[in-house]
Amino acid sequence: MRKLIIGVMGPGNYASQDDIQQAEEIGKAIARQNWILLTGGRNAGVMDAASRGAKAEQGLTIGILPYADKKTVSPSVDIPIYTDLGNARNNINVLSSELIVVCGIGPGTASEIALAIKAQKHVILINPDADTLAFCKRIGKNYVHSVSNSTEAIDLIRKLGVG
Amino acid sequence: MRKLIIGVMGPGNYASQDDIQQAEEIGKAIARQNWILLTGGRNAGVMDAASRGAKAEQGLTIGILPYADKKTVSPSVDIPIYTDLGNARNNINVLSSELIVVCGIGPGTASEIALAIKAQKHVILINPDADTLAFCKRIGKNYVHSVSNSTEAIDLIRKLGVG
Amino acid sequence: MRKLIIGVMGPGNYASQDDIQQAEEIGKAIARQNWILLTGGRNAGVMDAASRGAKAEQGLTIGILPYADKKTVSPSVDIPIYTDLGNARNNINVLSSELIVVCGIGPGTASEIALAIKAQKHVILINPDADTLAFCKRIGKNYVHSVSNSTEAIDLIRKLGVG
Amino acid sequence: MRKLIIGVMGPGNYASQDDIQQAEEIGKAIARQNWILLTGGRNAGVMDAASRGAKAEQGLTIGILPYADKKTVSPSVDIPIYTDLGNARNNINVLSSELIVVCGIGPGTASEIALAIKAQKHVILINPDADTLAFCKRIGKNYVHSVSNSTEAIDLIRKLGVG
Repeated sequence: MRKLIIGVMGPGNYASQDDIQQAEEIGKAIARQNWILLTGGRNAGVMDAASRGAKAEQGLTIGILPYADKKTVSPSVDIPIYTDLGNARNNINVLSSELIVVCGIGPGTASEIALAIKAQKHVILINPDADTLAFCKRIGKNYVHSVSNSTEAIDLIRKLGVG
Repeated sequence: MRKLIIGVMGPGNYASQDDIQQAEEIGKAIARQNWILLTGGRNAGVMDAASRGAKAEQGLTIGILPYADKKTVSPSVDIPIYTDLGNARNNINVLSSELIVVCGIGPGTASEIALAIKAQKHVILINPDADTLAFCKRIGKNYVHSVSNSTEAIDLIRKLGVG
Repeated sequence: MRKLIIGVMGPGNYASQDDIQQAEEIGKAIARQNWILLTGGRNAGVMDAASRGAKAEQGLTIGILPYADKKTVSPSVDIPIYTDLGNARNNINVLSSELIVVCGIGPGTASEIALAIKAQKHVILINPDADTLAFCKRIGKNYVHSVSNSTEAIDLIRKLGVG
Repeated sequence: MRKLIIGVMGPGNYASQDDIQQAEEIGKAIARQNWILLTGGRNAGVMDAASRGAKAEQGLTIGILPYADKKTVSPSVDIPIYTDLGNARNNINVLSSELIVVCGIGPGTASEIALAIKAQKHVILINPDADTLAFCKRIGKNYVHSVSNSTEAIDLIRKLGVG
């Protein structure tokens, strides 16, 4: 029986303090469930924070890097996958996750939300702003969910029956 | 001197009649400028309509296909590029276009808008709904423009100085 | 009726003088047939030489670039496709060509020959060394052909019935 | 300290009995070293056999799938990465491995050897035929090694100082 792989997506260099705190929390919560965390793998923002959280709880962390260069990977990633695909790797992030949890927004993150919906994967937004939520609902009504924190996110993952 | 390549993006199978009409108009207008049209290449929706418009005005049309299968290409595409990358090919669409013009919205199109902004390319939305415009402005303030029709789109392309 | 797209593959920075001369010849010959030339697009070696040859005969040239950076493209490429996929773009080169003609050998070129055979595309080697020919025949018996010059290559393309 | 990731590459549907036996042996040997195994992930040939071997020794197994479809993955893969890139995923296989060990030959495998050399990764061929060895040496002199069995392969990995 394979362990569940949950993606956590969010801004890299432009993540807010709140994005980073939410990412670390959800990373911890995923690891406590004994699920595997998947992120974009870079040593920045939400990717790094979620991985750091998961490692603090002895979780297993996968990072799907946009580059081939080992210096770009988060120290909290156990299994770096070097794609050298630039942002085309965003589609791999979502296809390899059972569903994605999103902390914060930016163009890269927006592309991952859109690609997840396209692939008919559930998207759980933690505290989205009103514009983001309205747009995501418009393009992916049945796949888009909004929660307030990591506890609600975990509960929803269980309820969605993917866990 | 290379000809300008302009991308036109929009829904495939779920394009509305209005999306298709706008796409055909902008395809024609691009060809009349002696620019090259680039689309996602499939025989569906906005991709097909824009290419058909461009060919009606003797333009040159490129299609960046998600598949390797020749049966999926629009008959109005002169140069099919078969990527077999699925939706990861969306990043090639935007990187290979000087800027993109968008007719309609859906998850695939949303990913292209987001990837274009990420790559610091201008995005011209033709008659966007309010939710789409608000979200796109949020993630890409300086790169997102809204126009009412293909004539305004062409004028804006010239004004942006890429043409 | 779409024009035939023929790929020409070979080393970039490490191309020999002979590779470059053969590439320029086959580029010219493809353009004289009114076919479209497709290469890896960079401003180096066989890609550049084949494109230069095709332009000398008023042909149309497509370049599938591994990068997103416009400074890397050959000045003889009419239509640059910026993939930002690194060497993963080699698969697009072969999938988008009706068949490939190969001048010289190196690891990148070897990957394109192998991917072409995998995709059941014909591969025409111009003056291959004995090791290269023996190996290519081993992995792709029915798809691998050896010729002495660009005239024989064009004749073979016609005989293979793809033209 | 990250665990070492070793790639094992070889034919899928057309693997010989000998390829499969060698793959299972090297999969076991990699797991016994407490290294992580990376393969192309499909439920066929060398990919499946190496993963099965590693699981028999309680190893961790990663599979980089060419598809998005979960039905194609080997039951012995712990962490499936769904790329939907077709054979363009071969470049990810080699970039994400510290080096690759090769059992058998075919066009897909040949593309992986070539891409590994291009990326300046070591390639260890187990019992290659003479044509394959001669060609690989020609395109990648300093990176290509030939061994007789999995014990020699493990010794060589240690000697190369990547382990």
